[in-house]
Amino acid sequence: MSIASSRSGDLLRLSTLFVRTLREDPAEAEVASHKLLVRAGYIRRAAPGVYTWLPLGLRVLAKVEAVVREEMAAIGAQEVHFPALLPREPYEATGRWTEYGPNLFRLKDRKDADYLLAPTHEEMFTLLVKDLYSSYKDLPLTLFQIQTKYRDEARPRAGLIRGREFIMKDAYSFDVTDEGLAASYEKQRGAYQRIFDRLGLDYVIVSATSGAMGGSRSEEFLSPSPIGEDTFVRSPGGYAANVEAVVTPVPDPVPYDDAPAAHVEDTPDTPTIDTLVACANERFPRPDRAWTAADTLKNVVLAVTHPDGRREVLVVGVPGDRDVDVKRLEAALAPAEAEPATEADFAAHPELVKGYIGPAVLGPQGEQVETPEGDKVSRIRYLLDPRVVPGTRWITGANEPGKHVFDLVAGRDFTADGTIEAAEVRAGDPAPDGSGPLELARGIEIGHIFQLGRKYADALGLTVLDENGKQAVVTMGSYGIGVTRIVAALAEANHDDKGLAWPAHVAPAHVHVVATGKGTDVFDAAERLSSRLVAEGVEVVYDDRPKVSPGVKFADAELLGAPLLVVVGRGLADGVVEVRPRAGESRQVPVDEAVAAVVADVEALLGA
Amino acid sequence: MSIASSRSGDLLRLSTLFVRTLREDPAEAEVASHKLLVRAGYIRRAAPGVYTWLPLGLRVLAKVEAVVREEMAAIGAQEVHFPALLPREPYEATGRWTEYGPNLFRLKDRKDADYLLAPTHEEMFTLLVKDLYSSYKDLPLTLFQIQTKYRDEARPRAGLIRGREFIMKDAYSFDVTDEGLAASYEKQRGAYQRIFDRLGLDYVIVSATSGAMGGSRSEEFLSPSPIGEDTFVRSPGGYAANVEAVVTPVPDPVPYDDAPAAHVEDTPDTPTIDTLVACANERFPRPDRAWTAADTLKNVVLAVTHPDGRREVLVVGVPGDRDVDVKRLEAALAPAEAEPATEADFAAHPELVKGYIGPAVLGPQGEQVETPEGDKVSRIRYLLDPRVVPGTRWITGANEPGKHVFDLVAGRDFTADGTIEAAEVRAGDPAPDGSGPLELARGIEIGHIFQLGRKYADALGLTVLDENGKQAVVTMGSYGIGVTRIVAALAEANHDDKGLAWPAHVAPAHVHVVATGKGTDVFDAAERLSSRLVAEGVEVVYDDRPKVSPGVKFADAELLGAPLLVVVGRGLADGVVEVRPRAGESRQVPVDEAVAAVVADVEALLGA
Repeated sequence: MSIASSRSGDLLRLSTLFVRTLREDPAEAEVASHKLLVRAGYIRRAAPGVYTWLPLGLRVLAKVEAVVREEMAAIGAQEVHFPALLPREPYEATGRWTEYGPNLFRLKDRKDADYLLAPTHEEMFTLLVKDLYSSYKDLPLTLFQIQTKYRDEARPRAGLIRGREFIMKDAYSFDVTDEGLAASYEKQRGAYQRIFDRLGLDYVIVSATSGAMGGSRSEEFLSPSPIGEDTFVRSPGGYAANVEAVVTPVPDPVPYDDAPAAHVEDTPDTPTIDTLVACANERFPRPDRAWTAADTLKNVVLAVTHPDGRREVLVVGVPGDRDVDVKRLEAALAPAEAEPATEADFAAHPELVKGYIGPAVLGPQGEQVETPEGDKVSRIRYLLDPRVVPGTRWITGANEPGKHVFDLVAGRDFTADGTIEAAEVRAGDPAPDGSGPLELARGIEIGHIFQLGRKYADALGLTVLDENGKQAVVTMGSYGIGVTRIVAALAEANHDDKGLAWPAHVAPAHVHVVATGKGTDVFDAAERLSSRLVAEGVEVVYDDRPKVSPGVKFADAELLGAPLLVVVGRGLADGVVEVRPRAGESRQVPVDEAVAAVVADVEALLGA
Repeated sequence: MSIASSRSGDLLRLSTLFVRTLREDPAEAEVASHKLLVRAGYIRRAAPGVYTWLPLGLRVLAKVEAVVREEMAAIGAQEVHFPALLPREPYEATGRWTEYGPNLFRLKDRKDADYLLAPTHEEMFTLLVKDLYSSYKDLPLTLFQIQTKYRDEARPRAGLIRGREFIMKDAYSFDVTDEGLAASYEKQRGAYQRIFDRLGLDYVIVSATSGAMGGSRSEEFLSPSPIGEDTFVRSPGGYAANVEAVVTPVPDPVPYDDAPAAHVEDTPDTPTIDTLVACANERFPRPDRAWTAADTLKNVVLAVTHPDGRREVLVVGVPGDRDVDVKRLEAALAPAEAEPATEADFAAHPELVKGYIGPAVLGPQGEQVETPEGDKVSRIRYLLDPRVVPGTRWITGANEPGKHVFDLVAGRDFTADGTIEAAEVRAGDPAPDGSGPLELARGIEIGHIFQLGRKYADALGLTVLDENGKQAVVTMGSYGIGVTRIVAALAEANHDDKGLAWPAHVAPAHVHVVATGKGTDVFDAAERLSSRLVAEGVEVVYDDRPKVSPGVKFADAELLGAPLLVVVGRGLADGVVEVRPRAGESRQVPVDEAVAAVVADVEALLGA
């Protein structure tokens, strides 16, 4: 038969298999995959964001790896393997030693030399190709590895979804021309589609930002899931993007020749948008319609930490009906990190009057402004939502407690240091390409592909002789798959309240055989059936535990999640065993037809 | 056919394979395996003791791993996978956080918590079994992993032989009884023999010391090689031990009733053993025979660094005809490290008169002695070679420049703090078990198995309920194979001055096909032959480079080291190709019989 067996000896007896199931969820687990993978004995936590793989988990992981490896080989990518422990110098050359900030695990060796645990390997691949290759004739080239990576996440969470030690497939392409890079990128993109299709993992491909990687085009593969950390948008017309990559359609400028002059009004006790709008409607009603939050300009004070440790207070102005989305903000500010300003930040800027902050004391940087105490200070950097185009009129803070300014016109009454994509994206917002209103969903990032361009080759001097005998800088792509994270994404997508429910291709075993009853005939028959299935290439978990109740055995089978359950028990007296898909109807099968029936079921599940 | 193929798609075209051969040895390489693995494009150095695996090297590594994995599975060991990044606490509990000293890579995470890169995983396995198991019925159990390990070696050397990041298979057994441990140990020992036999790697099994691992019985698997770091001894009667584990046979005490009293003599300008012996023979001749170096007691001053950083000056007394072997000394002092005393050490101990040091100012510790200046100081710890038994008579230093003491009798005139196995072992020394004179040889440590006993289970509280319902401390074994080091050991054992010469089971490919000539007919025939071989399951490197000379192609084939070379070239006009084993006679084979002939040759090489 044609069942692909990842390794020989696939009869896993529960009497000796190194596994213990738990009835209770682990205290620290928040998401189903984490809870179930721990409860079913697939993984165990060794430290925050650092996991140990037990035998069943390792079998799933090995199957995922095998699919990734095969599809990489199929597009001609060649496998190599880099160290995780690397010297500082290459990362210094590209600036990432600093840019990664606290996300990088750094250490010193006994000679006090600086090392890091690599979060990703662009530098090393670039240097290796530089070491070996020198001519355009050597290219195109795509290399990959399946290797352990490290990131000192601020908030490791959700088990394998966001860990600090994890396995990635990372591939890198090397081309002379932009067209070559586009072709290498498309090949990886196709391989990713085949990988996730084979793994039975639903996914969407969305436009993405490049973050600390640099480069131009980039797309993410997201597995839709309510527990995903990534929010993405889709339009009826086919636009799809990570919410961090959504570009706000910029309205046309508004003529403001007729606009009245800005005027400051008393708005006592209006430190929030809601209180401000209520006050405005009560005391300064518009004739045509009521004021709404969208008429106000909210100035949000943030503290930005740059990779070099420098802390900057920054103000972002957004329409009052939208919040600042910190992930969009950080994507826009990368590699810097941002957080709400603290009391200390406010104390350092007496010109900022909480709840009443307005453009009059903000940007552009370099110019000065007077504090309430009469001191001259530099203006804080001020960035605006792209919707605040010239001519738009706003109610906003007047920089005095209980006062706001009305009819403040962008471009006439205030300017800023630029725009920023920091406002939240909402369902119903228009797609940037005009393809209709956006809907929002969440997903787990399982793959990310980048057209890096020449950033790394430039920084590290990777050139080849081109057709004309001139040195040409190589252009690169970078392609990552979170191999350990895929195991979690598979578990998220394939479970119910009783436990895991693996697709057959990645299940630790195809069949779970349960012997129920006390007679040796039952165990003999189950043993014989299991052995014969294994001889046919089927991977079997056999619950041969003699003194465990049927109820516990069934609960364990459902928790472990093999796609097919075979029960050898009471029916044996009538010459039948029960065959029960993990999610489906059970049926009685005569004992002497059981092997053939189960093999046929497994082949059907595998699509063989 | 039955050739086991590690992966599909095994046609490696040299026109696109990511490899570049070098004609020159890399500057830093000292040993053949390092030189050749770099020159043949199998590995590249990323940092001292840290290597990148290129496609050909990775194929060899994968084959070695597969053999190790299969033999572990065959004895029922279950595979798991631990992180490399681990928290300090478990290693603190066993004392190894400190004991490993500077050999441990330590780091802090962003919350300032202490982590390490694991050099070995006894602690984690112990805790995992404690987490899952609780009854003697769960045992015996053997777990293993194939995983990346880290040691911050003082002197990384010889390429893959002693690295700082390397891959090990480490296995751990868990038993309730000592007999159980012995049985688990024997199973691993047998598996190791089968692994090295299958890999075609010659080895000897020698008794060993346990070093920082703790435990009782321990044996090493050494691959004999002149470049090996381990020296081992063998006797005609079958005794075999690592030189560090050799126990000196202790002579019987000597009666000394008739011995004359010790007497100090002027021995001007005799700071060395040679000058002392010459002076003694000239000025104080023995009637019966000449004095020899063996009549003198040499007191060697050493500085010992303890894991907690404390530096201790120690004196070791050995017969003057033997040197102190620093590796034996360190094995005896483990986990402390030792080096020759520095000028600063001597300056701190004015009672030590260089070249004339004698027992009168040395140990036992705790007692006091007067310096030349009349100060009272504590005696330095003093350890003696086991041959210095009570009653033996010595010429040794009198602690004054130009003076030695004669007829100084051990046990009568001086005592020490104990004995130490620090003197060099020499060819011809008697085996400790009386099985004859020892011969010495060198080897590469490729495996090490330990009966750890209850050290780790005690420290970490791993107990199970025994048959009587009482808590019993589990006894453990620890079993390591240096997977990456094996690749180097294989290269050391299988090369000539032209390059590598792999055994068929671990070669990156079975056959190297070379197309020589310019006609498309040659390339067409070579391509056809290569494809048909691959279809038969043969792994092929095909040198399809169009503009490379036959000489370069042959040199590359010999450097890369596939066991079988097939040349498609001039003979094609006569309907033949050449089949040439890497080490053997070439023969002409008709083109239409070539596939069958090569397949038969490969099967023979694989013993299929």
